[in-house]
Amino acid sequence: MDERQGFGDRLQAAVVATSPLCVGIDPSAVLLERWGLEDSAAGVEAMGRMIVESVAGIAAAIKPQVAYFERHGSKGYVALEAVLASAREAGLLVVADAKRGDIDATMSAYGEAWLSDGSPLSVDALTVSAYLGLGAMDEVIDRAARSGRGLFAVVASSNPEGRSLQEAVTASGRRVEEDLLEEMASRNAAETASTGRSVGSLGAVVGATRTAGSLPLSSFAGTFLVPGVGAQGATPADVGALFAECPTGSVVVNASRSILAAGPTLSAVAAAATALAAELRAELA
Amino acid sequence: MDERQGFGDRLQAAVVATSPLCVGIDPSAVLLERWGLEDSAAGVEAMGRMIVESVAGIAAAIKPQVAYFERHGSKGYVALEAVLASAREAGLLVVADAKRGDIDATMSAYGEAWLSDGSPLSVDALTVSAYLGLGAMDEVIDRAARSGRGLFAVVASSNPEGRSLQEAVTASGRRVEEDLLEEMASRNAAETASTGRSVGSLGAVVGATRTAGSLPLSSFAGTFLVPGVGAQGATPADVGALFAECPTGSVVVNASRSILAAGPTLSAVAAAATALAAELRAELA
Repeated sequence: MDERQGFGDRLQAAVVATSPLCVGIDPSAVLLERWGLEDSAAGVEAMGRMIVESVAGIAAAIKPQVAYFERHGSKGYVALEAVLASAREAGLLVVADAKRGDIDATMSAYGEAWLSDGSPLSVDALTVSAYLGLGAMDEVIDRAARSGRGLFAVVASSNPEGRSLQEAVTASGRRVEEDLLEEMASRNAAETASTGRSVGSLGAVVGATRTAGSLPLSSFAGTFLVPGVGAQGATPADVGALFAECPTGSVVVNASRSILAAGPTLSAVAAAATALAAELRAELA
Repeated sequence: MDERQGFGDRLQAAVVATSPLCVGIDPSAVLLERWGLEDSAAGVEAMGRMIVESVAGIAAAIKPQVAYFERHGSKGYVALEAVLASAREAGLLVVADAKRGDIDATMSAYGEAWLSDGSPLSVDALTVSAYLGLGAMDEVIDRAARSGRGLFAVVASSNPEGRSLQEAVTASGRRVEEDLLEEMASRNAAETASTGRSVGSLGAVVGATRTAGSLPLSSFAGTFLVPGVGAQGATPADVGALFAECPTGSVVVNASRSILAAGPTLSAVAAAATALAAELRAELA
């Protein structure tokens, strides 16, 4: 472990300085058309840069959804690299929403791609998916902690189709989502104990549509990335209730459609982000 | 459903014409060095093209592991596009190992990236990960079937860390891996019934390290992509026993390290592939 500040502490500082809002960059074909942009790598890059410019200083982070860049192949990745650079310059934390999930050397290669200082795809945190087991990701978990970066593993998603698997009961007698959260909590506890960081580098994606009390969130000692507000029906108040016992600055709410629908005028996007940021601050202070 | 041949039938034809071998393209830093290639996008592309040239006519398919291309950012994706094009020219089926997994519109964007005629990343099949539920991937499942392409969802992985989640028991009383296989089998059955295809477009990743009899493989009516032979300790005979009841041509075994370690001489790679292909043919005929 070097002397860098950990991702959890960096996120906390960013939330305190701005708000618990993370704005999703989802340049879908539908949204590009609505913004009067071409459905091309250039259009995707333009939208990404516009969102960065609009929400800098209002949101703690942006979350580019990599799928929408990948639609345009390598040119889409050139666009993504440009958007990542512009977000860094604007002082926004960047969470790449890629939901990578593999084992051993392959997972480490994803770590090199997304969580390395010199990489063109370098971000502050990466979303991951643990169907193959969190234990197969050891190296990349260490890399994140060491380099002051974070990982957000999907634990309890906001969509109904994920419930069956996430609520399945393991040999421990607990649900998959509980086991995963507990495994991550124990790694966060070890990290905070050994580094003096107040929040660990492992984050959990927990949908705002989940029920308060169904998961041991207060002892997590890591960060939470929360989808499901707006389009999927949850409210800022739901988030406030769900994470009531969690430290200020450990929770960021991702919103995309509800904010981007206000575009393409930058001031309108900023106004929509400002309004949601204020609501979230009130619930999560 | 248009008149295209389905992926299952295409894979079956390729296996019959060549072998049940799928060669993984895993241009890791370690392997690049061993082959005397630079750890750069150019090195990754060179290795990919060399593998394609070596195994065309011997293997049914190649499986580029996207993580190793992504290490080099957008330039790595340019290299990947070049390797995909060279594989198409060589008549190899291409399975992109990307383990994408998301919901709704985001998942559809992955479908547009990987399973579309005009896309630079167009492949024959894509690996996916269903932590968020297979039901959240409806559109991309339909897209695959419609366009003569396939999806391989990870069901029972070859690594030990995945067991806890994959064996967790759902509300149906079955294990996660059984539920997923059954859900896919029923979609494959519907597809074959409505199209006259003999094998459905949905494939399952099932590790060769799994025990025969532990999963209902014979009624799957789709394809299987099988890792775990060689490096992870399983043998061609294990694969033969595990898939004894499955139709010829519905199973392909992925091998990478055991074949690529023979390089960099193309003839040595071809010889290693030929030897394994013969063993697999003997077990899976």
